[in-house]
Amino acid sequence: MAMALEEAAQAARCGEVPVGAVVLDAEGRLLARAANRVERDLDASAHAEILALRRAARKIGSVRLEGCTLVVTLEPCAMCAAALGHFRIRRLVYGAYDPKGGGVDHGAQLFRQPGCLHRPQEIISGMNERESGALLQAFFRGLRSLPLAENRRNP
Amino acid sequence: MAMALEEAAQAARCGEVPVGAVVLDAEGRLLARAANRVERDLDASAHAEILALRRAARKIGSVRLEGCTLVVTLEPCAMCAAALGHFRIRRLVYGAYDPKGGGVDHGAQLFRQPGCLHRPQEIISGMNERESGALLQAFFRGLRSLPLAENRRNP
Repeated sequence: MAMALEEAAQAARCGEVPVGAVVLDAEGRLLARAANRVERDLDASAHAEILALRRAARKIGSVRLEGCTLVVTLEPCAMCAAALGHFRIRRLVYGAYDPKGGGVDHGAQLFRQPGCLHRPQEIISGMNERESGALLQAFFRGLRSLPLAENRRNP
Repeated sequence: MAMALEEAAQAARCGEVPVGAVVLDAEGRLLARAANRVERDLDASAHAEILALRRAARKIGSVRLEGCTLVVTLEPCAMCAAALGHFRIRRLVYGAYDPKGGGVDHGAQLFRQPGCLHRPQEIISGMNERESGALLQAFFRGLRSLPLAENRRNP
């Protein structure tokens, strides 16, 4: 999670919503790490989870990441939750809860849908929730304060 | 839809599940087209819809495809349905229904979830359903017949 938080902080420095993700193999070795790149790549699907999953699959040369763990600083949205099913992730560990945009414990609660084809065998929610949440709050506070700062400079 | 079907047929020739997608702008002009590339790219998220959305966003230089239409030969899964919300697609047109893997009219029925943040204003389901379905059936029939053919050659 520390590594995922580093990725999230790096995203914030680039003006991206601070979310970071890491994929570990069955022995806990790092396969891939990624930060959210939506704005930089002009790609609304370039969430940290999708990028880390894709890199990990290329690294091991298989479209299925069976036995692997995805660690991410924020509750995955429905897109990322479904993606980690497609990649056959065994264990999901996430940081801050996302009551508005989350798709695991909120919203569509994808893995609780009766027809869900592939769900992680284990889900750990809320790990280092405070650190992940603090990064997000600081980022959005900064965004909200921008027009005010502009106003002060150009009254 | 004819163009999306062409993409699907091309995917089948490359050994991919035959699904094709096209993005059109508000005036109906082609922005991007794509075929499923999961096996070729070793990327379980490389569904035709995601690839077409990403290409269209790069083409117009905006992460939001407001006013645009996504045409796809198969009912989008939950991952792709959520993605087209993220890209702010205005209209979704799809071909064959997918009772097992679909996430629009089946499974998670993502756009019918009360907390859904962004849903297309218009959804047209089952357009050219027969052609899209026939491509998929032929593909999976071919896959199933492979071991039999092998058996016949090596009794």
